[in-house]
Amino acid sequence: MGKLARGVALIGAGMSKFGAFPDKTSRELFVEAFIDARNSVDNGIDNKDIEAMFLGNFSSDLFEGQVHTGPIMADWVGLVPKPVTRTEGACASSGIAIRCGVMAIASGLHDVVCVAGVEKMTNLPTSRVTDTLGAASDVEYEFPVGATFPGLYATIATAHMKKYGTTIRQLRTIGIKNHDNGKLNPKAQFPLSIRDLMEKRIKKLKEKGEEAPSWRDEFDFLEDPRANPVVAWPLRLYDCSPITDGAAVLFLAAEEVARKYTDTPIHIIGSGQGSVQLALHDRADITTILAAREAAKMAYRMAGVGPEDIQVAEVHDCFTIAEIVATEDLGFFKPGEGGKAAEEGVTARDGEKPINTSGGLKSKGHPVGASGAGQAVEIWKQLRGEAGKRQVPDVEIGLTHNVGGTGGTCAVHIYRR
Amino acid sequence: MGKLARGVALIGAGMSKFGAFPDKTSRELFVEAFIDARNSVDNGIDNKDIEAMFLGNFSSDLFEGQVHTGPIMADWVGLVPKPVTRTEGACASSGIAIRCGVMAIASGLHDVVCVAGVEKMTNLPTSRVTDTLGAASDVEYEFPVGATFPGLYATIATAHMKKYGTTIRQLRTIGIKNHDNGKLNPKAQFPLSIRDLMEKRIKKLKEKGEEAPSWRDEFDFLEDPRANPVVAWPLRLYDCSPITDGAAVLFLAAEEVARKYTDTPIHIIGSGQGSVQLALHDRADITTILAAREAAKMAYRMAGVGPEDIQVAEVHDCFTIAEIVATEDLGFFKPGEGGKAAEEGVTARDGEKPINTSGGLKSKGHPVGASGAGQAVEIWKQLRGEAGKRQVPDVEIGLTHNVGGTGGTCAVHIYRR
Repeated sequence: MGKLARGVALIGAGMSKFGAFPDKTSRELFVEAFIDARNSVDNGIDNKDIEAMFLGNFSSDLFEGQVHTGPIMADWVGLVPKPVTRTEGACASSGIAIRCGVMAIASGLHDVVCVAGVEKMTNLPTSRVTDTLGAASDVEYEFPVGATFPGLYATIATAHMKKYGTTIRQLRTIGIKNHDNGKLNPKAQFPLSIRDLMEKRIKKLKEKGEEAPSWRDEFDFLEDPRANPVVAWPLRLYDCSPITDGAAVLFLAAEEVARKYTDTPIHIIGSGQGSVQLALHDRADITTILAAREAAKMAYRMAGVGPEDIQVAEVHDCFTIAEIVATEDLGFFKPGEGGKAAEEGVTARDGEKPINTSGGLKSKGHPVGASGAGQAVEIWKQLRGEAGKRQVPDVEIGLTHNVGGTGGTCAVHIYRR
Repeated sequence: MGKLARGVALIGAGMSKFGAFPDKTSRELFVEAFIDARNSVDNGIDNKDIEAMFLGNFSSDLFEGQVHTGPIMADWVGLVPKPVTRTEGACASSGIAIRCGVMAIASGLHDVVCVAGVEKMTNLPTSRVTDTLGAASDVEYEFPVGATFPGLYATIATAHMKKYGTTIRQLRTIGIKNHDNGKLNPKAQFPLSIRDLMEKRIKKLKEKGEEAPSWRDEFDFLEDPRANPVVAWPLRLYDCSPITDGAAVLFLAAEEVARKYTDTPIHIIGSGQGSVQLALHDRADITTILAAREAAKMAYRMAGVGPEDIQVAEVHDCFTIAEIVATEDLGFFKPGEGGKAAEEGVTARDGEKPINTSGGLKSKGHPVGASGAGQAVEIWKQLRGEAGKRQVPDVEIGLTHNVGGTGGTCAVHIYRR
């Protein structure tokens, strides 16, 4: 086990703009992403070349009252009557779709497949979105006693603070960093730095003739409950990823046909996936996610590389604490040292280990079923040197880390130029 | 494309009892099926051997308020922290999971995987189940104008009747045949023949002191609205599969390790899947399902066999008309001749082409996400000569045909002893 029967490469990747689009359906967002991905294929790709689709989607069931979303999306981009399989692993729904796409090609069943993700979340009021996301926790034990995702991740955060001395300043650093990156991403939902947000707030207050607080810096701003209210202590608004509509689309091909489509394929050299009990109370240690450690181990082993070889990574920062835990689970830093590393700038765009150059879920947005495929879009751009102002120079090996729920599912993929 | 990098075999298969179990959760039904499947492996299997799981589930989201069902099921049978991927393709959710399991092994990523399906439907009142299933139609175009699945399949039935002269008697024949088969299946939800149901009714009326109608035979009974009310003409109650709770579990292994587990593996020699527009009004012809024809073509080509070679098949009889259409789409009979073949006894257990020896969805029950895996359980038993009183003698090649919605998704698999 664990060795691909044949190699698989990314030959194209694209996404819709992420954001809140009351006038667009999930179908329209999907078409937007599909066209963007088609345009990214250097030598072009015809629908007739695409043999199957794997679609990550968390719950069109609860968000849109629509199950059986796969064939709808396939139809809207002209892929009917080809096989389309929807995969669901909460917010890792399209991360696990990537793994299915890899298997589909390596198995010999298909040469070229589409792997995608889509979610339309903003048609429900926020409280109902919170409840819908809560359905990814254990609904027999966690949800009925009032657990929500901010609450569950706050529990992880306080445990991490207690065990390792992780600080609130470290949490806030993640948000500041990711908004700094997202500012450079034209597809991001909130392409504004925290400093931009602070200055905007000051300007607004002045316009109203009110006295603006004398915030010394972003950290000061982020501790002010008027600017950044507590959601679930220690997590405040800017520790939480937003509610987002969006879609992302990838094309995968067998190595032997990839060059037909591009001279610069991105090879998928590692794939890993793991699971763990949904309920936090069932786990031995909640400062780490076992599913992520398993997925990482599997992906590193297949790729024949280690954490030290990863030059750029998109990790699942649904909350700021989640990025800290992710960078530890992936072996980038020792347990308990993720926060410190962020604070020291190691994970900044110009640091030794740039994390979430896209802006991450925090600033780019988190259309849950699309987020995993969206991460791969960023790695595709970075490894090809097409990430524009947020480009990290000379990167050859990248990684995506996509978590579902509080870690019940995790998919990790490793890519090489 | 279309050729497996390495062969895949079924090494075990089991299922929970199908039925309405108000006191059992989906977790408990899943455990029941998993234990039954473990017990079916001749030389035994340890959890440590099972490397991943693919779980078909239609909508635990809407039925149970639980998304992210995969890791829950994995945890309840002790498979955490292994990868678990939920697949959704409406009522074909576990049929497409079988294809993912085949790919997982053929790709070289895994040697042994669990493929399963689960659905808990009866905790909702019937009207809400109808609405929940309706979410597998196109909810922008079909569902809002009042379409339900009985209504949509009734539309298919009337079109088939108009185009080919298919008769109501032919529809009823399917129900009678499948209940005759299901009577011999101890796991079936309604293990009673239509004649049994008729006699039961007569007895009950007599006990009440009422005059029993003088039904000449089953057909007469089935045309009496007191015994068999119209649901959506021409479909009556006994043309419709029931609402069911249940789970089914399969174990798949690479050919080179299969003999470790059993001397009688069942080889999966063909796998096909297709899609079509969800909405009936988008299709050129509604008397046939394009997704099924595509899936069948793909599966036959891979297996190197044709419809004439299939000795026993489980097809998706969610409604009686669906079985007629299925047997035509699979090439067992020419378009328009499926009803006639059933009426002539060709598809009976002792006919030339025995269909739905398990009782089919009609009598065995239709826990939607589990039905596809459940079909494979029957083929496993038939090809190994373990189907008890419903055994078809000396069968070597079998087929499963699992449809989602009105055909938006279809998976076909072919098996050889």
